[in-house]
Amino acid sequence: MGLNVAQKLIKDHLVSGEMKPGEEIGLKIDQTLTQDATGTMVMLELEAMGLDYAKTEVSAQYVDHNLIQVDSKNPDDHLFLESAAKRFGIYYSRPGNGVSHPVHMQRLAVPGKTLLGSDSHTCANGCMGMLAMGAGGIDVAMAIAGEPIYITMPKIFGIKLTGELPDWVSAKDVILELLRRYDVKGGVGKIIEFYGPGVDTLSAMDRHVIANMGAELGATTTVFPSDHEVKNFLRIQHREDDWVEVVADKDASYDLEDEINLSELVPLVAKPSSPGNVVPVTEVAGTPIYQSYIGSSANPGFRDFAMAAEIVKDKTIASGLSFDINPTSRQMLTNLVDDMHIASLLSAGARLHQAGCNGCIGMGQAPATGRNSLRTTPRNFPGRSGTREDSVYLCSPEVAAASALTGEITDPRTLDMPYPKVSESENVNVDDRLLDAPLPEEEAKKTDLVKGPNIVSLPEMDELPDTLELPVLLKVGDNISTDEILAGGARVLPYRSNLPGISKFTYEQVDSTYADRAINTKESGGHAIVGGYNYGQGSSREHAALAPRYLGLRAVLVKDFARIHWQNLINFGILPLRFDNEEDYDKLEKGEVITFKDLRSQLTNGDHLTATLQDKQENIQINHNLTKRQKEIILHGGLVNWTKARQ
Amino acid sequence: MGLNVAQKLIKDHLVSGEMKPGEEIGLKIDQTLTQDATGTMVMLELEAMGLDYAKTEVSAQYVDHNLIQVDSKNPDDHLFLESAAKRFGIYYSRPGNGVSHPVHMQRLAVPGKTLLGSDSHTCANGCMGMLAMGAGGIDVAMAIAGEPIYITMPKIFGIKLTGELPDWVSAKDVILELLRRYDVKGGVGKIIEFYGPGVDTLSAMDRHVIANMGAELGATTTVFPSDHEVKNFLRIQHREDDWVEVVADKDASYDLEDEINLSELVPLVAKPSSPGNVVPVTEVAGTPIYQSYIGSSANPGFRDFAMAAEIVKDKTIASGLSFDINPTSRQMLTNLVDDMHIASLLSAGARLHQAGCNGCIGMGQAPATGRNSLRTTPRNFPGRSGTREDSVYLCSPEVAAASALTGEITDPRTLDMPYPKVSESENVNVDDRLLDAPLPEEEAKKTDLVKGPNIVSLPEMDELPDTLELPVLLKVGDNISTDEILAGGARVLPYRSNLPGISKFTYEQVDSTYADRAINTKESGGHAIVGGYNYGQGSSREHAALAPRYLGLRAVLVKDFARIHWQNLINFGILPLRFDNEEDYDKLEKGEVITFKDLRSQLTNGDHLTATLQDKQENIQINHNLTKRQKEIILHGGLVNWTKARQ
Repeated sequence: MGLNVAQKLIKDHLVSGEMKPGEEIGLKIDQTLTQDATGTMVMLELEAMGLDYAKTEVSAQYVDHNLIQVDSKNPDDHLFLESAAKRFGIYYSRPGNGVSHPVHMQRLAVPGKTLLGSDSHTCANGCMGMLAMGAGGIDVAMAIAGEPIYITMPKIFGIKLTGELPDWVSAKDVILELLRRYDVKGGVGKIIEFYGPGVDTLSAMDRHVIANMGAELGATTTVFPSDHEVKNFLRIQHREDDWVEVVADKDASYDLEDEINLSELVPLVAKPSSPGNVVPVTEVAGTPIYQSYIGSSANPGFRDFAMAAEIVKDKTIASGLSFDINPTSRQMLTNLVDDMHIASLLSAGARLHQAGCNGCIGMGQAPATGRNSLRTTPRNFPGRSGTREDSVYLCSPEVAAASALTGEITDPRTLDMPYPKVSESENVNVDDRLLDAPLPEEEAKKTDLVKGPNIVSLPEMDELPDTLELPVLLKVGDNISTDEILAGGARVLPYRSNLPGISKFTYEQVDSTYADRAINTKESGGHAIVGGYNYGQGSSREHAALAPRYLGLRAVLVKDFARIHWQNLINFGILPLRFDNEEDYDKLEKGEVITFKDLRSQLTNGDHLTATLQDKQENIQINHNLTKRQKEIILHGGLVNWTKARQ
Repeated sequence: MGLNVAQKLIKDHLVSGEMKPGEEIGLKIDQTLTQDATGTMVMLELEAMGLDYAKTEVSAQYVDHNLIQVDSKNPDDHLFLESAAKRFGIYYSRPGNGVSHPVHMQRLAVPGKTLLGSDSHTCANGCMGMLAMGAGGIDVAMAIAGEPIYITMPKIFGIKLTGELPDWVSAKDVILELLRRYDVKGGVGKIIEFYGPGVDTLSAMDRHVIANMGAELGATTTVFPSDHEVKNFLRIQHREDDWVEVVADKDASYDLEDEINLSELVPLVAKPSSPGNVVPVTEVAGTPIYQSYIGSSANPGFRDFAMAAEIVKDKTIASGLSFDINPTSRQMLTNLVDDMHIASLLSAGARLHQAGCNGCIGMGQAPATGRNSLRTTPRNFPGRSGTREDSVYLCSPEVAAASALTGEITDPRTLDMPYPKVSESENVNVDDRLLDAPLPEEEAKKTDLVKGPNIVSLPEMDELPDTLELPVLLKVGDNISTDEILAGGARVLPYRSNLPGISKFTYEQVDSTYADRAINTKESGGHAIVGGYNYGQGSSREHAALAPRYLGLRAVLVKDFARIHWQNLINFGILPLRFDNEEDYDKLEKGEVITFKDLRSQLTNGDHLTATLQDKQENIQINHNLTKRQKEIILHGGLVNWTKARQ
């Protein structure tokens, strides 16, 4: 039987496992991308692994998130990342060069390749016929070091596109329609693959818009074929030689199927506070807005800004409204300047910001209290804008621009004007002056890392001892989230490149004495935490495993784990253990000491361990579900050590 | 004898006093400007005064400082300011419209008029033949309410300009030369007036550059004549009708004189960390820089950006350097876009920011740790950039642009290129779409103030009682600064529109129990503070008087006062008292209670007061130096009440 695009991409990169949905598979990674908010830790992990030089075909470090420099921490991070990119043979996209996803698409994406990125919207480059996936920082570090990524083989969800988008309806409405149908968990465990005659009518950048927000469906990734549109995009970028065709076989099939007739779509809006809360614009038309916001990787294209510019041209934005324009790449910004679209936007009253993520990730541009914000960004989760109890609506550039003129959410079809005809620019300013190419290996090795005072190298972590005597420092209940383990927010995030600094916030909301008590166990062999069901749910942040490990955590004993945190515990050498008998949870109080003997051979030889409760003089049975590879990682004390040992 | 320009402007606006240096004079104010960092309190003061409608010819509220919106506080302030501008009949310049000083010059400045602004660089509009002065917030509020400003008649310091600027030397070097000669206190008690044939060679915007940094000399203000260049500037702004000639009489003379031969000037640089630390660029050439920064009211002109653009055109900025471009007005930005200068800057590698003050006042763009920043801004005081122990150099756009190319401080005369010929644009985009005109009075009165949760109206303040029994809550030594009374910085500044909120930080560094103890005295009649010499030195922030008054402070008893804080105490109804006998300072310990009887008649009838120390059963003699007007203000409980009583 023939293969679809996703299956072809997986098959071409398969290094272990079988392509059966639900099985673990290992995939070779050709390209990586990191951004500055996650990249500093990735670079510190590469340093700790002792990596000499990136083993990928292309790795790129972007600076797009932390562009606001209210003190020296962010610019220090930029300089560190620049030095690390030089040291490890990685492209470095300087501040001002733009958002990772569109810049990568323009300058580095290659059809048929795999891309792993430490940003959840990495899937955007699925528009180029790539298998492009978001992952945790150390997974990307491992990929840079030449290791495969291990994932669960997803189901392939084929979406057949037919028809053609009507006037005033654009790519954003396609993905909003999918979110309307399937909501924010509809893509979990699936790769979404678009096919059918409607795909032909969408430019490569339109497809970027759609692929990007596959993340909001919870999908493993999104893929489009690499066809004439991708070829055309690469030609305009002076990279036609990078094109290869990647299309589904004629007799390809899908695990799941649905169809969207583009001709029947209408302008859509996601209401607060979920991208899945989608309604036709007509249903919310007339809602007053404080802010109209154009930009982000969910609407990064030249045509998105040009469309907004044509709509507001020779008009004036509504009184009291903030019209925020966030260019997404320097290349596009210069083209928008050349084509007078920036002039139109400024004249209408826009605030033009530097190219980057900006308010999309809450870096500035927060709305006023109790006011509505209308944005072309991918997410409107509560508080993400920077304002508590915010009220953010998501939409296409057409809706955002029309609404900027009226001061209320407006159906652009009601504007008294013809639909502007704009498309991606044909003559782009190809210019990589802010995209530093990797140094040759010999030169790279001579580069020193530049570390500001807030950038701290990862400490050495020891391998798993054969005997552990672990006092239980904390006993928690069910559904502990990674936010409770290690919060985000403005107090904590500036320490993301400083493990000793960030570790002080560990479990702060649950037990403010934990961090101090924990670090005192480091010398004496560490400690354990006991928990209930669904331990470690929520955000994938790897710091929620790395920080407690730094404080001496060696084992977590629970009823069961949330999947990603479980993986993160393994990655940093912490034993993720489950009670054979869940009633044993009640036997383990704070202060009890758990002893493991012959631990290394116990771990190697099976799925079960015996532990002794010192006070109660009683043995309990516990289990894990580790593959051979995962056992090896834990025996070495984590992925960093495991990688070093293999070099 | 003939009059110089400054004397003519003063004479035309004199409402009290004599034009003798050192005498108090009252001046009628025609125009005011406020910016967002100081304007919120000004508007709350107008509300507290019960002002119906601005009594000035022109008042304008700009939003240029707090453009970074990391939470809802800044956008809430913007909406409040917009509503207050509507309510009180004030122009409102929306976020993105630009920096107050150049926008005011372009759109509202009128030769021959007085301008009072709650921003220290208000003197910039002295370039228009105006008497333009910075002042505290409530002084500007009073001016909006139709009251004169009272100042000490300054000496007029005539600077004769001869010759013509050589290539690669520009207006910034003129004011840096003055700072080199006279340092940062050289202008105190003086108005600096430029005259002579060299003035003819400088455009109105060149003169803005020079007048702006009169603030750095400590001058009362700077004035230029209103001549053909001002007329030309207004013609280009479609405002030729606003022009009147204001030139010195032929037989005018000056209290002090100096001369600058423009032809002999060289490119200059102010080294860290004072604008007075000026050397020729040749002395610091080769110093490595992390950042090159173009913008601010100290180099706001079209020609400043166009010059930088021409210098970097078709070249690339140095590796690792951040080239920050901060447009200063929307008008100029659109012209720079039209004339392709923005394209040149972006292509060379610039980060283009929204029009506003930005990093000049530490709102973003902080340099990395231990790196040098080269800026066209007016100030480089330690930490102002946002980075502690920063290292900021000040210079012209020519030096900044040349250095951006090399990555080190560079004498632009060493560039291998002819000096670009650029001048202010002739065809400007006159466009007031982001400058909302005042509402007519009847409509204004129907407007409600829009207050976010962090904007708190000023509380009522009672008049001076006839008897005060004041416990001494704090006894401090000499040279207490307003920074010690009420700190600035990111923790405190967000509460500038919230008096109850900001008052909690009062004297925090000196005695963290003060605020709590103080507010408990409010009900029982208040408290006193005892201090030594030079009490209240430093920044002019009015919150350093307003916040302790809110906490119940009624009298400050010291050896002597710093001038501005003394004025602020009077403005907010706090008795500023001095010991007749300085040894009495030693008698007054914390906890002592000071009693004043027949206080109102004592104050009205002379310069001396008798107070009783309750514990010691002893009288002490104290004095003040208040004019009749100032006594009235204190009897009413401050300027707000005084103004209300006169309506």
